[in-house]
Amino acid sequence: MAKSEYTYVRDFERPDNLLPSTWLVVRIDGQGFSNFTKNHQFTKPNDIRALHLMNRAAKMVMESMVEIVLAYGESDEYSFVFSKKAKAYDRRASKIATLLVSKFTAAYVFYWSEFFADTPLKELPAFDGRVVEYPSDRIMRDYLCWRQVDCHINNMYNTCFWLLVNQGGMSQQDAEKRLKGTFAKDKHELLFSEFGVNYNNEPEIFKKGSVLLRSLVPIDMTDKDGNSIVREKKVVQIEHCDIIRDRFWREHPGILGETSQ
Amino acid sequence: MAKSEYTYVRDFERPDNLLPSTWLVVRIDGQGFSNFTKNHQFTKPNDIRALHLMNRAAKMVMESMVEIVLAYGESDEYSFVFSKKAKAYDRRASKIATLLVSKFTAAYVFYWSEFFADTPLKELPAFDGRVVEYPSDRIMRDYLCWRQVDCHINNMYNTCFWLLVNQGGMSQQDAEKRLKGTFAKDKHELLFSEFGVNYNNEPEIFKKGSVLLRSLVPIDMTDKDGNSIVREKKVVQIEHCDIIRDRFWREHPGILGETSQ
Amino acid sequence: MAKSEYTYVRDFERPDNLLPSTWLVVRIDGQGFSNFTKNHQFTKPNDIRALHLMNRAAKMVMESMVEIVLAYGESDEYSFVFSKKAKAYDRRASKIATLLVSKFTAAYVFYWSEFFADTPLKELPAFDGRVVEYPSDRIMRDYLCWRQVDCHINNMYNTCFWLLVNQGGMSQQDAEKRLKGTFAKDKHELLFSEFGVNYNNEPEIFKKGSVLLRSLVPIDMTDKDGNSIVREKKVVQIEHCDIIRDRFWREHPGILGETSQ
Amino acid sequence: MAKSEYTYVRDFERPDNLLPSTWLVVRIDGQGFSNFTKNHQFTKPNDIRALHLMNRAAKMVMESMVEIVLAYGESDEYSFVFSKKAKAYDRRASKIATLLVSKFTAAYVFYWSEFFADTPLKELPAFDGRVVEYPSDRIMRDYLCWRQVDCHINNMYNTCFWLLVNQGGMSQQDAEKRLKGTFAKDKHELLFSEFGVNYNNEPEIFKKGSVLLRSLVPIDMTDKDGNSIVREKKVVQIEHCDIIRDRFWREHPGILGETSQ
Repeated sequence: MAKSEYTYVRDFERPDNLLPSTWLVVRIDGQGFSNFTKNHQFTKPNDIRALHLMNRAAKMVMESMVEIVLAYGESDEYSFVFSKKAKAYDRRASKIATLLVSKFTAAYVFYWSEFFADTPLKELPAFDGRVVEYPSDRIMRDYLCWRQVDCHINNMYNTCFWLLVNQGGMSQQDAEKRLKGTFAKDKHELLFSEFGVNYNNEPEIFKKGSVLLRSLVPIDMTDKDGNSIVREKKVVQIEHCDIIRDRFWREHPGILGETSQ
Repeated sequence: MAKSEYTYVRDFERPDNLLPSTWLVVRIDGQGFSNFTKNHQFTKPNDIRALHLMNRAAKMVMESMVEIVLAYGESDEYSFVFSKKAKAYDRRASKIATLLVSKFTAAYVFYWSEFFADTPLKELPAFDGRVVEYPSDRIMRDYLCWRQVDCHINNMYNTCFWLLVNQGGMSQQDAEKRLKGTFAKDKHELLFSEFGVNYNNEPEIFKKGSVLLRSLVPIDMTDKDGNSIVREKKVVQIEHCDIIRDRFWREHPGILGETSQ
Repeated sequence: MAKSEYTYVRDFERPDNLLPSTWLVVRIDGQGFSNFTKNHQFTKPNDIRALHLMNRAAKMVMESMVEIVLAYGESDEYSFVFSKKAKAYDRRASKIATLLVSKFTAAYVFYWSEFFADTPLKELPAFDGRVVEYPSDRIMRDYLCWRQVDCHINNMYNTCFWLLVNQGGMSQQDAEKRLKGTFAKDKHELLFSEFGVNYNNEPEIFKKGSVLLRSLVPIDMTDKDGNSIVREKKVVQIEHCDIIRDRFWREHPGILGETSQ
Repeated sequence: MAKSEYTYVRDFERPDNLLPSTWLVVRIDGQGFSNFTKNHQFTKPNDIRALHLMNRAAKMVMESMVEIVLAYGESDEYSFVFSKKAKAYDRRASKIATLLVSKFTAAYVFYWSEFFADTPLKELPAFDGRVVEYPSDRIMRDYLCWRQVDCHINNMYNTCFWLLVNQGGMSQQDAEKRLKGTFAKDKHELLFSEFGVNYNNEPEIFKKGSVLLRSLVPIDMTDKDGNSIVREKKVVQIEHCDIIRDRFWREHPGILGETSQ
């Protein structure tokens, strides 16, 4: 930037570097998505096209920001976990959050027509985001538990709610009243006895959300002599698994291991 | 959000509300745009399509965030000035910056094909952004002066540089060497004597950048009795004028006036 | 500081520089002073020795931190106003607040015996403090109005309360009940009709608090030839005046004037 | 505080709560102590009275702030380590730092005459302080290592320096030159061959600094039947030991153990 007598205004910029050696989690959320989903006729309670589009955008973000070790998405939100050791942009909060949100939004708009071939964008989507520092592995894991439990509770509620409305012919107010104060057991029972739905058989992507991970996959290649060989490459893969129990973390030791101190 | 034993992780979120009664300026910048512009064959030194696309996206942002009183753009950056009295999102820095960047990026990708009809997007654009607080009218104005002087200095340099390269047949290194240490006067002279270019006749959008303002414009309407009437409506308009001198601020008293304390 | 393999821990220190061109106000408050005042038998509602000690300590602070342009004290609190242009310690919040509190406390303990000759310190006093940024002259003045109005309201209440208890023979609970819901007018009336006290004649230091200012005062000196001459010197002076009305600010134009932008 | 039309100025106060589950370390430093020590004729390189006074003040702080688990002092600085779980003042940085500094300063001035019976205070001491968050046990320990290594390096240097000046008759500049570029081994050799001093025999308080810990100590008491019994009580004790090696932490498992997560 060119210097001038006005350059002093830079002194008003404040540093916002985050604490080193903490897990950084950026959670982004769709803004005003209850309108956005109505405007574009999203299927309720879950629109599989919309979830795949979220995943596509998140994958692009994770491919372009290499210090993200894991991402987790549900509904219109996505959480990106940066390594404790992440050094990107000197850990400046605003830089990390705005760039990530910008990349995600760009991909969401760009890939929209791939997933919503017959639905033109009538309104532009927007996402907000914030970075939070988590000082220990346990607390970072609890953050992810919080989001996956949230996914589970919301999905079970919404599955009941929209069945009551769409198949049960209830008004939205009546459906709300009907579900008030019910526990998980009651909702399982309601789904099964009234609609013949076994909640456990619902798609994993609805019940568990989406987990993005880097995995080594074998790649068939040809060497310079024309022989076919196999190499391993790190790629971002999507799973819909439980990330609350220890098993997940044992099966993917690299997530915590690379950065434990 | 559903409550659970994990909800305690919210305690790690930190408040980032900005100081009341200060001008808030969000400046966004294209990330890695030297590659992006090469990839999409932008005209040098200025690509008028790209500038109009930036302005289109900025206009959309300004229409959707009503507390922005003025925006100023040059090259691949844009600054948005929020009223001293702005209350949006309780003046939370991360919320304001991420949403603004998200809206801008969405519009940039969405409107791309309108301005680059023959150039498909090969790479997704990304913008970063940050909010800065300016405590007085004078300092906020000096911020804008800083950007417009930057626009002027860069444009004059780039105009010379690319003429030397494109018409003068120089290598980029030689052009750089030729311009090193030259003053504005020297560059005016170079442009005129070597290329017959009078810098003052260059397009205002290149020399001054773009200024977005809200103006009252007359709208022809029909009242309920079928008579045609004229109403005034506030719309965002684009100018390419000097915002350094007092004249601009006298002619648009509403910018400072509405919010002076 | 000596360097070692452990020096990396400095990276965890975060910058906390305050915004330039804002008024900085540090307010300090006595911690647990309801116990402290009981322990040392302070006179109620106002102990003149304690107020003078507060003023003595504040004067010392103001003499040693030259960018303080005004200080205002009431009860066990003191506010110090630093010039908008203050550059001390690069405007680092923690440095400014801790040093000021430390200086104040040192003076309070050191000068204690001057004001409480017969009362040894039985418990150590402690003060907390915080810096707040005020972006305009008007808001900084409103801060001071806030504190002086607080002084006025509290003093009127306490004057009534302790007269009811000490001279009226009421219990503290009954005195509280008696005053509940009363307005200023009622309290004036109560003081006058029940105790013959005209509130307007109460000491200014109780009603208005204490204002510390830098003033030029004439100093008698002797020049090198032995002639007596008069020079002016800036000294910290204490007043007990109204700082809410414009008159005060007109009479002391230097406070705002030196730093207006 | 009484409410008024001016109460809005409170909106300018910004929250500064520190991250939960991190170790909080407050380090305080004497301000301008090179002058202060000259003014009060401190013995060089170490004044044992001054060190004991620092320890006395630190002990008072630790007794009054119960979430401090350990403190470490050397020269005119002291570091206080708050438990990861500390909740005092909602972990507000300014509150914690200013109160701690205030308590320390009050004690320093109050106890001065106990340790400097023949030296009246000619100038008031002042300390600054800041809070830093450390996310893991290892990093908090490395912070303490950093300070104890600093103590060691400085003390060895100063021991040599002042022997060269006081017994060797060198000027301060010459002593500085003589020590430039020397390693620990060289300094050991210098002390022994030129002054017959075995550095290892120097007092531990000079070489290691001071460590304040809470320990259970047996207290002789009498029960209600007049029998003498022994009870344990937690008191603050001072040691001058190595806190770099694991041994210290194994011997005091409570420091990390109580708060590990």
